[in-house]
Amino acid sequence: MIRQAAYAVEPWCVREQSLDLDTLAQSESVFALSNGHIGLRGNLEEGEPHGLPGTYLNSVYELRPLPYAEAGYGYPESGQTVINITNGKVIRLLVEDEPFDVRYGELRSHERALDFRAGTLTRNVEWTSPAGDSVRVRTVRLVSLVQRGVAAIRYEVEAVNRPVRIVVQSELVANESLPDLGKDPRVAGRLENPLVGEESVADKDTAVLVHRTRHSGLRIAAAMGHEIDGPECTITSDDFEDVCRYTIATRLQQGQRLCLVKYLAYGWSSQRSRPAVHDQVIAALAAAKMTGWDGLVREQRQFLDDFWAGADVEVEGDAEVQQAVRFGLFHTLQAGARAERRPIPAKGLTGPGYDGHTFWDTETFVLPLLTYTRPEAAADALRWRHATLDLAKERAEQLGLRGAAFPWRTIAGQECSGYWPAGTAAFHINADIADAVIRYADATADEDFTRDVGLDILVETARLWRSLGHHNAKGRFRIDGVTGPDEYSALADNNVYTNLMAQRNFRAAADLAEEYPEQARRMGVTEEETASWRDAANAIVIPYDKRLEVHPQSEGFTHHARWDFDDTPPDHYPLLLHYPYFDIYRKQVVKQADLVLALHLRGDAFTDDEKLRDFVYYEGLTVRDSSLSACTQAVMAAETGHLELAHDYIGEAALMDLRDLEHNTRDGLHIASLAGTWTALVAGLGGMRQYTTRLTFAPRLPPGLSRLAFRMRFRGRRLKVTIGHDATVYELLGGDPLEIDHYGEPVRLDGGAVRVAVPPFPSRPSPPQPPGREPARRDKTTR
Amino acid sequence: MIRQAAYAVEPWCVREQSLDLDTLAQSESVFALSNGHIGLRGNLEEGEPHGLPGTYLNSVYELRPLPYAEAGYGYPESGQTVINITNGKVIRLLVEDEPFDVRYGELRSHERALDFRAGTLTRNVEWTSPAGDSVRVRTVRLVSLVQRGVAAIRYEVEAVNRPVRIVVQSELVANESLPDLGKDPRVAGRLENPLVGEESVADKDTAVLVHRTRHSGLRIAAAMGHEIDGPECTITSDDFEDVCRYTIATRLQQGQRLCLVKYLAYGWSSQRSRPAVHDQVIAALAAAKMTGWDGLVREQRQFLDDFWAGADVEVEGDAEVQQAVRFGLFHTLQAGARAERRPIPAKGLTGPGYDGHTFWDTETFVLPLLTYTRPEAAADALRWRHATLDLAKERAEQLGLRGAAFPWRTIAGQECSGYWPAGTAAFHINADIADAVIRYADATADEDFTRDVGLDILVETARLWRSLGHHNAKGRFRIDGVTGPDEYSALADNNVYTNLMAQRNFRAAADLAEEYPEQARRMGVTEEETASWRDAANAIVIPYDKRLEVHPQSEGFTHHARWDFDDTPPDHYPLLLHYPYFDIYRKQVVKQADLVLALHLRGDAFTDDEKLRDFVYYEGLTVRDSSLSACTQAVMAAETGHLELAHDYIGEAALMDLRDLEHNTRDGLHIASLAGTWTALVAGLGGMRQYTTRLTFAPRLPPGLSRLAFRMRFRGRRLKVTIGHDATVYELLGGDPLEIDHYGEPVRLDGGAVRVAVPPFPSRPSPPQPPGREPARRDKTTR
Repeated sequence: MIRQAAYAVEPWCVREQSLDLDTLAQSESVFALSNGHIGLRGNLEEGEPHGLPGTYLNSVYELRPLPYAEAGYGYPESGQTVINITNGKVIRLLVEDEPFDVRYGELRSHERALDFRAGTLTRNVEWTSPAGDSVRVRTVRLVSLVQRGVAAIRYEVEAVNRPVRIVVQSELVANESLPDLGKDPRVAGRLENPLVGEESVADKDTAVLVHRTRHSGLRIAAAMGHEIDGPECTITSDDFEDVCRYTIATRLQQGQRLCLVKYLAYGWSSQRSRPAVHDQVIAALAAAKMTGWDGLVREQRQFLDDFWAGADVEVEGDAEVQQAVRFGLFHTLQAGARAERRPIPAKGLTGPGYDGHTFWDTETFVLPLLTYTRPEAAADALRWRHATLDLAKERAEQLGLRGAAFPWRTIAGQECSGYWPAGTAAFHINADIADAVIRYADATADEDFTRDVGLDILVETARLWRSLGHHNAKGRFRIDGVTGPDEYSALADNNVYTNLMAQRNFRAAADLAEEYPEQARRMGVTEEETASWRDAANAIVIPYDKRLEVHPQSEGFTHHARWDFDDTPPDHYPLLLHYPYFDIYRKQVVKQADLVLALHLRGDAFTDDEKLRDFVYYEGLTVRDSSLSACTQAVMAAETGHLELAHDYIGEAALMDLRDLEHNTRDGLHIASLAGTWTALVAGLGGMRQYTTRLTFAPRLPPGLSRLAFRMRFRGRRLKVTIGHDATVYELLGGDPLEIDHYGEPVRLDGGAVRVAVPPFPSRPSPPQPPGREPARRDKTTR
Repeated sequence: MIRQAAYAVEPWCVREQSLDLDTLAQSESVFALSNGHIGLRGNLEEGEPHGLPGTYLNSVYELRPLPYAEAGYGYPESGQTVINITNGKVIRLLVEDEPFDVRYGELRSHERALDFRAGTLTRNVEWTSPAGDSVRVRTVRLVSLVQRGVAAIRYEVEAVNRPVRIVVQSELVANESLPDLGKDPRVAGRLENPLVGEESVADKDTAVLVHRTRHSGLRIAAAMGHEIDGPECTITSDDFEDVCRYTIATRLQQGQRLCLVKYLAYGWSSQRSRPAVHDQVIAALAAAKMTGWDGLVREQRQFLDDFWAGADVEVEGDAEVQQAVRFGLFHTLQAGARAERRPIPAKGLTGPGYDGHTFWDTETFVLPLLTYTRPEAAADALRWRHATLDLAKERAEQLGLRGAAFPWRTIAGQECSGYWPAGTAAFHINADIADAVIRYADATADEDFTRDVGLDILVETARLWRSLGHHNAKGRFRIDGVTGPDEYSALADNNVYTNLMAQRNFRAAADLAEEYPEQARRMGVTEEETASWRDAANAIVIPYDKRLEVHPQSEGFTHHARWDFDDTPPDHYPLLLHYPYFDIYRKQVVKQADLVLALHLRGDAFTDDEKLRDFVYYEGLTVRDSSLSACTQAVMAAETGHLELAHDYIGEAALMDLRDLEHNTRDGLHIASLAGTWTALVAGLGGMRQYTTRLTFAPRLPPGLSRLAFRMRFRGRRLKVTIGHDATVYELLGGDPLEIDHYGEPVRLDGGAVRVAVPPFPSRPSPPQPPGREPARRDKTTR
């Protein structure tokens, strides 16, 4: 049984009040700091003990061969794996003769707190050495959201019970040894000593380590500098190939403190020379020092104040969800804030899980949140996809297709999936990217993006779909042999989600080509081509099971045997670790929302009755062995009137990492599930949809909540929506007047708050889930 | 462009009249000798040059890890690979100072011949050394079909133009270095130095090498002894860990000869001790020496005379097919004659292709031939399957199924497939094994086998099917998510071939359980269980496309896009080396007969009209990228009245290796295609079927042939069938009277020849094949 850490429930903070060594790796993920460019896991400053040391730079990866027992044409030969780069977090402490190590002596108190408004991780420790010397150590750590290449740590040590001689060692360490993570396929491959030293200097002020990766040929520089405040001390420096170290020795009287501010700067490049990346980190360090510690802290808070002003969510009646949704918003912001034309990995920069790869999670689960709260970060992520368009076109050609085929999993744009039925065949990622483009364009009216980036992506993905599908003898457009979102099925015909998303892709591409005729012409788009997209969209096959009156996930799905849930022991989940794909694929069992995700994202393509019947049907089959499910089930539970169930699923999505529900938070946070919590609240309970350029709401509150309020950005405005059981208040916090829909009725917002009644709606009892797979109940009193 | 060897067309022999170094590896496969236990590739005695050195013992393999880029539950972790064991073929010759090597000096003549009646490979060489010394070397080689552990070589060297000093070195060599075979997935993995030396002795008479494999822990012994005839000579012996050597030095006058008979004995065991396997090969060697060279040659011919008396096929009008069908019969016999409860690999023991694995080829393509020509070999092969039943039951349990799941590819019974969509999912192999059991039992009336072996296999495979399928809401029995014979589709629902073969399996298991109630009861078979098998058989889903009036290969197949044959360049076949499986699987393109194989093996389940429409439809889609297709297409072409096309396909199946049609004969012969030639003639032109215990014929001859005659064994009888254009003559050559069917009319055979007229039948023009994939025309004059 994997234990899980216990965090205090506070609205703006995750606080750990004592140190549990068994859950150290989980806490390292939860307490990770990042700005989307630099990622620091919440490792203790003294380096040990650790769960998993982790310092990451977005897109710094190493190549490793992908082996196959039986090779096949078009299989990728090498994969990209995120690597643990130079660790600048290390500050060791010697108290008299004794290294400060929480495993020895007496740990009198140990508290860590991640503050969502300050953007800092603080740590307060009181420790008595085996020899009886007590010290207080207080650290504050930040990764700057304002200065992209900069992180900093304020480290303070105080003599508590008597004078002590102390030595502080502040380091940069490359090629740390990493623990073996076992065989779970969701864990990253481990690479030994991926970095080759190129330069190591530590002068009086500044130390720099430059390394490069062995195979991927990336050059990485890390620099550190310090400010010291306290009694007189002696300072020495060392530099070795993989280590730079400053050693600060002093004597503290009882109650006296030594305070060290450590500035860190990181940079990397696949092209620039060693001197260039060296100079880059020295420059970033100079800027950080000029700003100073207080300045960095102030900048950080201002950045976050601005973010929360357009993003905060208030949840009354469920303090855990209140904390978790802000935790999720904070980490999603950290993952994407400064990624800047680099990918947003499934785990952000919080751990090495899934090899640091980016999947469809980004576009489908993360970007909706960013689109409506920090649109510039959404644009950056899509511009990254656009930057890989040529690679995607090459891949399409290799697969015998037209247009662009984006990779199922990647860091730098090349396909890194070593199992094609759940990789190459999951073509829906292309429609997911297109969908994110459409959503961003409609939600921001960002013309430059739409013309320069959006059009390219939509046209090339529409071309892909056109060549991937074909018309049958009856003139219907089929897309055969693909894998939909549910990873417990593969290689099926006419996956409803895929076909409906391709339909949206086709139509949006045709619309945009007509809107920007000159650009479209330059891409070779003709009227014949746009007409063929519209024809395919209109003729696309959407299978329907008339007997059951539900949509099969894919053609034939409802004819398959149901999984034998009754004979599946509770410890046999996730199924993929206990049953062969052969068995899983051929039966009715759903890992994660697939048809139900179509009900959400293409809700315009279903009637209310269909939504209800489909939702209930798939509830009985969905085991949620993926973190990408509960949030979508929450949305559709809410829309179909299962409000308590919606609340339950919101809880599950929200607490995925704070409660380690999938037992793998140690490898990194589930950014998509964290972002999905926002979607579950805003699109679920808020009923927010945007199928066109118009924003619509259909708010409804479960019995367990008394009030839900959220802020969002939309086409240059800031809005606030406050939902009660009887009425909803819409407020325009900034920007031009706007008309929205409330339950299908237009509501005009031009300054003040507008209060409108919430119509009564059915509250339905939960449909059955597979035995043992029901979500934990949020509101136990009401059932 | 891969060149191919040219062999003279002779009825009872394959003769190579000059040596072509570019096609050496192909000739080594064609000239391989084997008895099913020992396999010797046709390597030159002097060892070099070689294409691929090869000496094999059935079931001697090494383990190698099977790697996966993304692992999954139930994937096999290690595979079995056939290894090149101790080579006893080596006899080197030094002529004066010059090693005899065909690449140097002048090769004045070089002829090799494989004689199907003698069971020997002879070689006659005249060579002049760079120094001008001419010698004649004549060798005769055999692997005894009578003495299972024995091979022998008669080696004669003659001084031609002047006296010469010669040295002959006869060796046993382990751990020969092997050439790298490239990346084609159909080629074997190469293992370096798989053998660890345990013993090496060479006394005056006899040398023995004992080795064991590093990981699989098999112990292998090889022994050699000699008889020398000629002028006085000096003989010395050496032994090293991997080499034993006799060196024979003498002087030959002009016209004088030295004759060496080399006896070889092989043995292996996974359990017996070094002394035990040592003694075993010494004993086999003693028996061989006692028999003597002439005795071995005589025994060999007697064995083959007996075989041909019940197996020969005479083809008038196509000398190439005449040669090839006997070549195929001979090699099929070699592969299975003395395998004795060991598998018959896809390549026999002629090369390392497909890692030496056994597939469904054995039961579906090889055993029909053996069942009707050498039934004891068919029984042995099925007894080997039976010996692996416990492993198959374990595998079924691992897959969450009941009964037995036989491996897709294996040497020792464990699943060795590293790509599950074309391995684990190809469940039809279980019905194929059951089908071979039923055929053998019905064709031999071998009660002991049926009771002790057949029942077990049929019951456990029926149990497998029962747990693999399920009843849908309408009470129809479905088998979803499996891969049929066509490897260009995978994971489809209700593959017609699979379902019909499972139906046959169900019914035969139920029948046999009723026939042997006591044995069935001991296996826990109840009346409820047999009733459930019959119910499932009766309710099994056979999809049908009413619009096209054809059977889709699997549900939905005919809705898929057709492969774009017009835009597929000729050099892009086989498709699997040029297109991703993703693309291949989702389109209508057929690698090898699948539905058409069902038309043959379950011809009782289709009407004549259905057969005709289905055959024509799949002709347009079948590219024959597998050697397991032409023979089946020949059978159904004949049955549906496309007689010239049948002749063409017979030619393709027959010449697969003699013309190297798939460019990989170098890795070993395509035993299934060679055996399939017999099926193509006997079941195709002879129209022979046996759906019950009754043998039926419907003979028909294409215009290009003037007469076809074949012999076969059936329930203790020997028959001969002679087919002309107007009439067929049936003869009972031995055994009790028998009633057969000729075109549905009973014909009683009780001694003399019975002549019956062949009714007229339609001769239809060939339906179109994919462009460029038409079989080569056999009878160019008639079209």
